[in-house]
Parts: sequence; C-alpha cells; structure tokens
Amino acid sequence: MRCTVLSCTLKPSSETSNTEVLAGKLTTVLQTLGVDCEVIRLVDLNIKPGVKSDQGEGDDWPMVRQKILSSEILVIATPTWLGQQSSVCQRALERMDAMLSEQAPDGRPVAFDRVAGIVITGNEDGAHHIVGTVAQCLIDIGFTVPGQAWTYWHLGPGAGPDYTETDQAHDWSDMLARNAARLLESTARALQAVPLPRIESSGG
Amino acid sequence: MRCTVLSCTLKPSSETSNTEVLAGKLTTVLQTLGVDCEVIRLVDLNIKPGVKSDQGEGDDWPMVRQKILSSEILVIATPTWLGQQSSVCQRALERMDAMLSEQAPDGRPVAFDRVAGIVITGNEDGAHHIVGTVAQCLIDIGFTVPGQAWTYWHLGPGAGPDYTETDQAHDWSDMLARNAARLLESTARALQAVPLPRIESSGG
Amino acid sequence: MRCTVLSCTLKPSSETSNTEVLAGKLTTVLQTLGVDCEVIRLVDLNIKPGVKSDQGEGDDWPMVRQKILSSEILVIATPTWLGQQSSVCQRALERMDAMLSEQAPDGRPVAFDRVAGIVITGNEDGAHHIVGTVAQCLIDIGFTVPGQAWTYWHLGPGAGPDYTETDQAHDWSDMLARNAARLLESTARALQAVPLPRIESSGG
Amino acid sequence: MRCTVLSCTLKPSSETSNTEVLAGKLTTVLQTLGVDCEVIRLVDLNIKPGVKSDQGEGDDWPMVRQKILSSEILVIATPTWLGQQSSVCQRALERMDAMLSEQAPDGRPVAFDRVAGIVITGNEDGAHHIVGTVAQCLIDIGFTVPGQAWTYWHLGPGAGPDYTETDQAHDWSDMLARNAARLLESTARALQAVPLPRIESSGG
Repeated sequence: MRCTVLSCTLKPSSETSNTEVLAGKLTTVLQTLGVDCEVIRLVDLNIKPGVKSDQGEGDDWPMVRQKILSSEILVIATPTWLGQQSSVCQRALERMDAMLSEQAPDGRPVAFDRVAGIVITGNEDGAHHIVGTVAQCLIDIGFTVPGQAWTYWHLGPGAGPDYTETDQAHDWSDMLARNAARLLESTARALQAVPLPRIESSGG
Repeated sequence: MRCTVLSCTLKPSSETSNTEVLAGKLTTVLQTLGVDCEVIRLVDLNIKPGVKSDQGEGDDWPMVRQKILSSEILVIATPTWLGQQSSVCQRALERMDAMLSEQAPDGRPVAFDRVAGIVITGNEDGAHHIVGTVAQCLIDIGFTVPGQAWTYWHLGPGAGPDYTETDQAHDWSDMLARNAARLLESTARALQAVPLPRIESSGG
Repeated sequence: MRCTVLSCTLKPSSETSNTEVLAGKLTTVLQTLGVDCEVIRLVDLNIKPGVKSDQGEGDDWPMVRQKILSSEILVIATPTWLGQQSSVCQRALERMDAMLSEQAPDGRPVAFDRVAGIVITGNEDGAHHIVGTVAQCLIDIGFTVPGQAWTYWHLGPGAGPDYTETDQAHDWSDMLARNAARLLESTARALQAVPLPRIESSGG
Repeated sequence: MRCTVLSCTLKPSSETSNTEVLAGKLTTVLQTLGVDCEVIRLVDLNIKPGVKSDQGEGDDWPMVRQKILSSEILVIATPTWLGQQSSVCQRALERMDAMLSEQAPDGRPVAFDRVAGIVITGNEDGAHHIVGTVAQCLIDIGFTVPGQAWTYWHLGPGAGPDYTETDQAHDWSDMLARNAARLLESTARALQAVPLPRIESSGG
C-alpha cells in the first residue's frame, strides 16, 4: 500500500517545516504497517494555476497527480495562516478539482476507494476549520475521510514557539497522529475488501 | 443494517420539510438495499442544551442517541439559514460532543465503524460550507464520511421557490442523493468487513 | 450609546460562564466609554425555533430583538463545541435572519449603522472559524464588523482548564477584549456621524 | 478616495474573468461616487509564497501591498472552486498576514480606517463560506467590513453557464454589487470622519 503526503508549507526544502515534522509522526506508524510513504513539498515545484489536470509547459502537477492516484492514502499537511490552510494547500485542492469529472477505466471517479487524512500545525487557532474545509473538498472529489484521521498542534492565542521549538502539547498531537495512521491504513484496507460501487453520472 | 436520519428542519411535523423530501430520495435507495431507515424530526422533541449524553428530566436526547448508536449509517439533513446549518442541527452535533469520550465495550470510540452522510436544501447558498462543518464534527467524533456521501439543492442568489415548489435542478440533486445512498451502504459494509482498529486514548 | 451582549453559553445562570467572564473584560471598557451594557443569557429564555421575528406564544425572542435594535453595539459571546459556535448562538443568528427583509422607517435595513463584535472561549480550537461564521451572518443582515473587534481564548489541543480556572494566556485575550471595546465604540460613533446610505431593495 | 480590487481569477489577462465582470458592476458605481478604482489581476504577477511583506527578488507583492495601503477601499474578487476561494485569493490573504504586526507612523495597525468588500462568482455553491473566510482574515488584520458589502453569483447545483454566458439571476447579484459600492464608500468616509483609536499592542 502507498501513501502520498502533500506538504503544503510555505518554506522551501532548505528550511524545516513544522507541519512536516508532525506529519512524520503519522508516516512513521504507516511505515511500520507496511505502507510506502512519500512526502512531496509542493512549494519546491511549479504547480501552475488552473483547474485542468495538465496546465501545460512547466507544470509539475501531472507528476503530483500521478503520485496521488497511485496511492491508497493521501495526507494533506498544512500550516495555518490567518486561521486558514496555506495557499499552497489551496492550490493543490484546486488542481484536484479536475478529478471531479475524471473516471477510472471502470467508470468510477478516480478518487474512489482512496482515503485521506489531515495534519495541521500553526502559531494560531484554525485547525478544526481547516479539517472541515479540506475534508469537504476531498469528499466532494470522492476521497473517504475516516473517523479521527487527523491531528493538529498549536498553543492557543498570541505569539509563541513553533512545534519544533517546544515539547508542549506534543503528547496529545503525536498520539492523534499515530491513531490517524492506523485508522487510515485500516480504512484503506476496508475499501479494498469492499470497493465503492459504480454510481450514476451526469456525464459532466 | 440500519440508518437514522436526523431531520433538522425548523418546522414542526405538521408542515412539509423540503430537506426531508430530498433526504427521502436517499432513504428510498437505502431501503432497496435492505437498510431499515428511520427519520427523526428533532424539532418535535425536547433536545436540551448541554454536552452530556443525558441532561436530565425531560431530555429526549438519550432516545435519539440510542437510535444513532444502533445504526450503521447516520444522515444529517438540514436546511440552510444565513449560509449555515440550522440551530437544530447544531444542537444535535453539540449533544454528540459527549461521544468524543465515550467508548464501546471493546474500548473503541462509540462512533467507530459508522458512516455519515449529509443532505442540505435551502433558499440560498451555503451547502458546501455545511458539508465541511458537519463532516468536521462527525469525523472528530469518529464517524467515517465516504466520498460523495452528500447532496444539496438550492437555486443560487435571491429569493425563489423551495425544493418542493419546483422541479428545477432536481435531476442533479436527486442523482447525488441516490449515489450517496449506495456509497454509504457500501462503506458501512466495508467497515463491517474490516473494522477500525483500537486506538490510543488519553483517558480523557 | 447602548450595547447588547448575547451570551450563548449552554449553562443556566446558576453556573459561571467562562465566555461571559471574558466578555466582561470588553464591557468593562465599554462602560468607561459611557456605553450602557446589558448581557442577555439566552439559554435562560425560550428562544423558539423558526425564522420569523415572533414565533408566537411563549417566544422570548421579540424582547431580545427589541434590545438588539435599541443598541448601537451587538456582541455575540459563544463557547466552542466541536470547533463551532454553540447551538444557542446559532439559534440567535437564525432568528436574526428575519432582519434581512425588515426595514426601518427610513427604508434602510434595521441593522444598518450598528456594529458587532465577537467573544469566544473554549477548551478547543475553533475561534477563527467562529469569527468567520458569525461575521458572515451579521454582515449579511447589515451589521458592520470593525477591524479586530473580537477576542478569543483557549489553550490549544487536548483537555485542559477553562478560562476561569487558569491565568494562562489571559494577557493576550484580555488585551484584545479591551481593544475590541474601543474599536466597537469608535466605529459606532463613526456610523452615527456618517450613516449608511439608502440602498436598492428587491422588495423581498 | 481610492479603491484597489484584487482580482483572484485563475485566468491570465488574455481571458475574460467572470468575477471581474461582476466586480465591474461595483466599481462603476464607486467611480460615479468619485472613487478611483484599479483592478489588479494577481495571476499575471509573481506573488511569491511566504508571510513577509517582501519575499525578495522578483516578488511583485510589495507593489500590490503599496496599492492596498494607498487605498481606503479594498475589494477581494474571487471565483469559487470546490466551494472555496481561489488559491490566488488565499495567497493574497496570506501575504497580508504580515500586516498583522505592521504599524503606521501613528502606531495603529496599517489596515485601520480601511474598508473591505467581497465579490464572488462560481459554477457552484460556496459564496457565503467565502465571505466568512475572507471577512475573518481581513477583520483580523484590521479592515472594517461594512454591512452587506458583498455580492455573489452562481446558479445552484450541477453544471451550467458562467456569469458572462447568461443573464439569469444577474438582477439580484448586480443590485447587491451596486449597493456594496455605496456602503463601502460611505463607511470609508465614516472612518475618515471618526478614525479608529490607538489600541494596546503586544509588541508582537
């Protein structure tokens, strides 16, 4: 089984992403369960604006899309700015919009039988909202979101340290990351055992 | 298999709920798949404020809670006011907050292995947001939300007819309701075949 | 000048509301600015479901509505459950939906020239989302939301103390409450000096 | 008085943006009120990822930021994809995050005394949610959002024409655009007459 983590930090790969470190708590458990995990830091790539699966010359999205569609598990990992997912995360969701009308050879939406989880860090509040927003987008496209397949970390109001700068509240956030890993892997197996049915299509 | 529909209309049972009529398109298909469906119109009951599973004398929530926990499928059906789910819907979600720390005899959260879908109507825009909000709450509690397990209906900006007053755009909304039924039933079976694992608990 | 605070706690008046205590930091400053403040704890009243300004016998909303419309400043104070405003808050917003089509004698929406602020506490994340949701509803109705006219308090992920049980992070939240008071009072005066214009109406 | 419109379409300037056309209904009225309006199509520029006001070589944001801070009125115009604002819109909000800690020479947040409005089009539902999200971000930064300072257009569920491809529902959306223009201009004047006060700062 395979997992693709879309790392939606705003920082280039030369810098440590707090969100990626927390996501690592999740993928470590996935790997012990035999899942191959790959983290893609989107900000390093050229993900062009648009809502087609290929926006032409220089667009790195087709490669990312291929990774997503070769994985049973998708993890969206995003920082929080102004209470929202990052623009890099929004760009990735936006590019996945094209999957709404893409069908696999069996006629089902390409995202069917895939599960998705969410990892969030921030200096401020916003995680529950981001879970709602990201889950809504992915469910719309056809991903299944298992119960409690997410984790988050921040320290409430006002300025403060980042995740990698303190141990405060790690216990809770890391536990939820480990739980999310097990719930994602199990639900992915459940959907392999009993795949989603074919559905009616508007042809759109 | 059983399905509980929480009808969150603001209207008492003496009046037709547009949302319930659209939800009926979903339950009709569930019934052909052998699922027993029960619709509970919450506004007829006394769902007391609070976040305990039983708020004492006169509280009808314990009965509703029992129905939810005896069903593999939960459907939240809500109208849209000011772009949001109804207060009746919010009350139901709020009462489910107690399930966050309630465990089944096997030690897992009581909501595990259950799936949830969402049905929305309105005179105005708001459905995607409501899907996000309701999905976030239910995923938090432990419900799994299958891909595309929702439908909605409204006619865009400005005043206009209700769902039961026109046939406009029914094709699309009804098709999604039928699809949601099949996806919910199949995913519920998947989680019966491969139940979610036990997870770590903070003891909270 | 007058201010109405809608306290949307789930607790009856016999219990201390954390949200009300934080809201008190805001109203204390408003009072030093000469604003009469009244806190209405909605859960003590019978706010009936529906979207009319008067839902008939026993409905306490008409009295609350009258307080709102006799105040230049409205403050919505709500706890956070599952990342969302309380059902009591949602009920109040829902009842304000009727104001969308209600006009003052001068032909303008009844909410015009009024400002609104938001106070949130919780054991968990959700405040930014609630600000967005409440602001959207109130802006829709015609209230003006001044910059930074809000405050919130919680302590990040996992279980922990309530606002009144610790001093942690109060500095930041209380400062924002004091700021919000000054910004609300000043913007209310600005709208008295330069009232909003008459607008086109669909007659709806 | 000046107004900057951030056009957040995903289309380059060689293509017509539906959202920009609807925003034009708003700016036309602003111009009759003596407001200079400039539309900036962000997708044509290089708005680099990050949360500093200047992300270095090639970053076009400093120029955009300067336009925003020389305007009393800001309009965010965004399409709807998957029920959300565009990634271009999210990028702009994210870059404005830096304004949270930037003060004018008088010690007040740089966004104070400025008003903001929102224009949304889409093939699908999502507008109320976007109003909430964008308003929350801008209020956080210090912009004031006047009552009803927004408009939106889409035609409900399912595939259908774009705004520029039909006249359907234009009446309502265009009327709200005209109203929003008058409300923004009037509130901007109100904040000139009675500027927001200085506030306490955490020094952050």
